[in-house]
Amino acid sequence: MPRNQQILLDNRPVGEATASNFKLVTTDTPPLTAGQVLVRHHYLSLDPYMRGRMNESKSYAASQPLGEVMIGGTVGEVVESQNPKYAVGDKVVGMGGWQEYSVVNAEQPGALRKVDTTHVPLSHYLGAVGMPGVTAWYGLVKIIAPKAGETVVVSAATGAVGSALAALAKARGCRVVGIAGGPDKCKYAVEELGFDVCIDHREHGDLKSMSKALKEACPNGIDGYFENVGGYILDAVLLRANAFARVAVCGMIAGYDGQPLPLQNPALILVNRMKVEGFIVSEHMEVWPEALKELGMLVGTGKLRPRESIAQGIAAAPEAFLGLLKGKNFGKQLVKLI
Amino acid sequence: MPRNQQILLDNRPVGEATASNFKLVTTDTPPLTAGQVLVRHHYLSLDPYMRGRMNESKSYAASQPLGEVMIGGTVGEVVESQNPKYAVGDKVVGMGGWQEYSVVNAEQPGALRKVDTTHVPLSHYLGAVGMPGVTAWYGLVKIIAPKAGETVVVSAATGAVGSALAALAKARGCRVVGIAGGPDKCKYAVEELGFDVCIDHREHGDLKSMSKALKEACPNGIDGYFENVGGYILDAVLLRANAFARVAVCGMIAGYDGQPLPLQNPALILVNRMKVEGFIVSEHMEVWPEALKELGMLVGTGKLRPRESIAQGIAAAPEAFLGLLKGKNFGKQLVKLI
Repeated sequence: MPRNQQILLDNRPVGEATASNFKLVTTDTPPLTAGQVLVRHHYLSLDPYMRGRMNESKSYAASQPLGEVMIGGTVGEVVESQNPKYAVGDKVVGMGGWQEYSVVNAEQPGALRKVDTTHVPLSHYLGAVGMPGVTAWYGLVKIIAPKAGETVVVSAATGAVGSALAALAKARGCRVVGIAGGPDKCKYAVEELGFDVCIDHREHGDLKSMSKALKEACPNGIDGYFENVGGYILDAVLLRANAFARVAVCGMIAGYDGQPLPLQNPALILVNRMKVEGFIVSEHMEVWPEALKELGMLVGTGKLRPRESIAQGIAAAPEAFLGLLKGKNFGKQLVKLI
Repeated sequence: MPRNQQILLDNRPVGEATASNFKLVTTDTPPLTAGQVLVRHHYLSLDPYMRGRMNESKSYAASQPLGEVMIGGTVGEVVESQNPKYAVGDKVVGMGGWQEYSVVNAEQPGALRKVDTTHVPLSHYLGAVGMPGVTAWYGLVKIIAPKAGETVVVSAATGAVGSALAALAKARGCRVVGIAGGPDKCKYAVEELGFDVCIDHREHGDLKSMSKALKEACPNGIDGYFENVGGYILDAVLLRANAFARVAVCGMIAGYDGQPLPLQNPALILVNRMKVEGFIVSEHMEVWPEALKELGMLVGTGKLRPRESIAQGIAAAPEAFLGLLKGKNFGKQLVKLI
């Protein structure tokens, strides 16, 4: 009966999230009942969507309840099983939360998925070959639906979603332009992730400057934009969008903390006859097999080589998460738990 | 060789459009060459899109050139023909502009369309069974795509587009909620156009009040919104939108005059997983036959009985147009030219 360190949401942020919103506790894992398995987590995934869950206000999913283990994707290994379909040693992906172990009712559809680590490292099932990868796939393939030769722009370019988007868009013959914070990230985006150009938003901190940078980076205009950020970058993209451009709205990090960030000139949606569509990947489970197949192939063949930022130990999760919200991570943010 | 009174765009508006932007001139109609016909206009259509054309700035279509006849849809009668496909007396729809006569190269595809006035009055081919009707059809059928029982909201509800939208949405089993200015228009919307409810935006002039009114008018939330106006009404609709709601962006009247009107909280597009799509009906000519067939049937069977506001004589066009931009018209705004 292993001891299980857990991180709970203790109270909701007022404005910016802080470490004091979380609380570390230690419990014993309960004994298993029929159908259950005990999973020891190897990695916990930290993702921007978690910030939205911390608010009480209406968001695109239920609020994270206070006093409960923070929601989160995990990969790990079955260490005890009362379910004939799972054996000790099986590698599994699930939503284990911010804790070292989870007891899972493995009969529940979608609760656990066995994965093969022959060609894909276990941690990548939380990134490129997991939820962030499928997020990039859905936005690109189902909303932006680019033709070869079109220009696709993505913000938060070196994150887990942006990295996958670059590989997927290059595979479709697109020009891919990233937006990231700082020269190191931009260099990495171009040299390792395959972006044609990467714009440093720290050098272009207002609408006019970003709009000019986009004009240079996208000489044929913008046909698709994958929105991870919100704020003035979206305003700038609208100024450079071609007729019939598509915007996949996946995240609006910049607005989570406080007041909503307005869109300055929504009439451009009409002027450019654009489509702006929001989505959550968990509502489109039907595409996961196709998307994971392509993403696994891109990783297996070395066409997608995502970096990871790894924090050590569950106690480090809150600080790593707050850093992620500020763009301090470099690639997919994980917490290693073994 | 009849004398032809014309209205030219003399200079571009600075801020609000005024009568001094236009200039009335009289010319002789030129002699016809082979393939041409001379059309005497019975009615000129006045439409909000014309305001956008008056600006020099990038809009969704080319600017109206200075010193040329204002663009506009017309219905009329062939009075002279050098084209074997058109006979004197034929009733035709075209883009004759703000003038009493036009010389049309009838060989050019789409330049003229013969219409049948047995069941549909000629003027309606500029409204319910013309461009505004097809605009409503496209936004409703191709973008909002409502299911029976869903709630569809339209701003500028008693205008040519809104009237057609109500009939089309009722035919699909929707709850249809209009937004219009003043008690007379709201009464007309419910009693004659078939709206389930109509909200008077003069009584609800800010976001909070409009949002409350929409909540009452749409007890099951909003599934589709046909946007003719922009500004705080769109903000209010986003607050009441259901998951997967669709917004067809057809017009942003409120923003034409001056500064862009921001969208206060675009993150709601993500929160509600919405689709917001702009369109211009002239780019979707493939749907016109199907749309006109349904609209003609609705008018022919009395299910769509649009009102018209009719100004008399071409010299009255500028004032009628400026009134339209301020919502002074009641139903489709026309200028009678005979």
